[in-house]
Amino acid sequence: MPGDPPIAPGATRILGIDPGLRITGYGLIDVTGSTTRLVEAGVIRIPEDQPLPDRLGVLHRDLGQIMDDLGPTVVGVEAVFTHPERAGTGVRMAHARGVILLAAAQRGLVVREHAPAQVKKSLTGDGAAGKDRMQSAVATVCGLAEPPEPADVADALAIALCTANRLQDPLDGSA
Amino acid sequence: MPGDPPIAPGATRILGIDPGLRITGYGLIDVTGSTTRLVEAGVIRIPEDQPLPDRLGVLHRDLGQIMDDLGPTVVGVEAVFTHPERAGTGVRMAHARGVILLAAAQRGLVVREHAPAQVKKSLTGDGAAGKDRMQSAVATVCGLAEPPEPADVADALAIALCTANRLQDPLDGSA
Repeated sequence: MPGDPPIAPGATRILGIDPGLRITGYGLIDVTGSTTRLVEAGVIRIPEDQPLPDRLGVLHRDLGQIMDDLGPTVVGVEAVFTHPERAGTGVRMAHARGVILLAAAQRGLVVREHAPAQVKKSLTGDGAAGKDRMQSAVATVCGLAEPPEPADVADALAIALCTANRLQDPLDGSA
Repeated sequence: MPGDPPIAPGATRILGIDPGLRITGYGLIDVTGSTTRLVEAGVIRIPEDQPLPDRLGVLHRDLGQIMDDLGPTVVGVEAVFTHPERAGTGVRMAHARGVILLAAAQRGLVVREHAPAQVKKSLTGDGAAGKDRMQSAVATVCGLAEPPEPADVADALAIALCTANRLQDPLDGSA
């Protein structure tokens, strides 16, 4: 059922996605004013022994199911990096990202993209924050005793939280 | 109607696709033994003023319609280039490619990928053949007086012809 668990009145439900062809992390939060509630988070595991088109098919199907079940209205996705020295990685990841953006567009969801440094800056104030600091920040804001595992879940939640921050910042023209 | 125009008995219907976020070219050929017949070719034009998710939505919808209408059993797509100095272009194109591979997988079509140099070598014997030579080769094999316009159509047909050649070459393990 869409929006299950139910969305609190006035809350914005945001799905953060950390794209990958092996594991795609997702994290769902409800935001009401300055209150953030972690609703659900997890990963989509994609069989590595299948050809690329079939792996994209699994990702599109499973992520679509998650979107339909959980009923977010906003989706946050990390922008792809294009470091010349890691061009191949960026290109592979962009296939997954294309399918993720498609799934959002097919449901009329609002999509927000953030560069990795923007996500770090939004959560810690430091665009070059390390992995440990990011995971601690996610745990603190979500009220968790420990950072969520695996790291793909923490990354997805960080993207959701960054999306929430930037939606609420009237000075952030890109939000 | 699937397979309209009708596929000749014993022929393999191959759809070649030249991926792009602005223009995606496609070319459909029927291959029977050593006979190649050009069935249809054209482009999908994607509105440039829309956000990326919506553009991917248009590409997925229109290409899916073409696949459903024309009924290919094999799809050929150019492999994405990952030249470090053009990483950004490759990443952008990979979003389109992800959606194209997904559309093929959702229909259970066989997908073949070819590096640009493989397409050139397959059509001219020279992996470094220039644009003019490639377009002439496409026109010759397809029985056209002039190379098809725009270039995206010629490129898509070249990919379809390369797919046909490699399917028929028992020594080509990747086909």
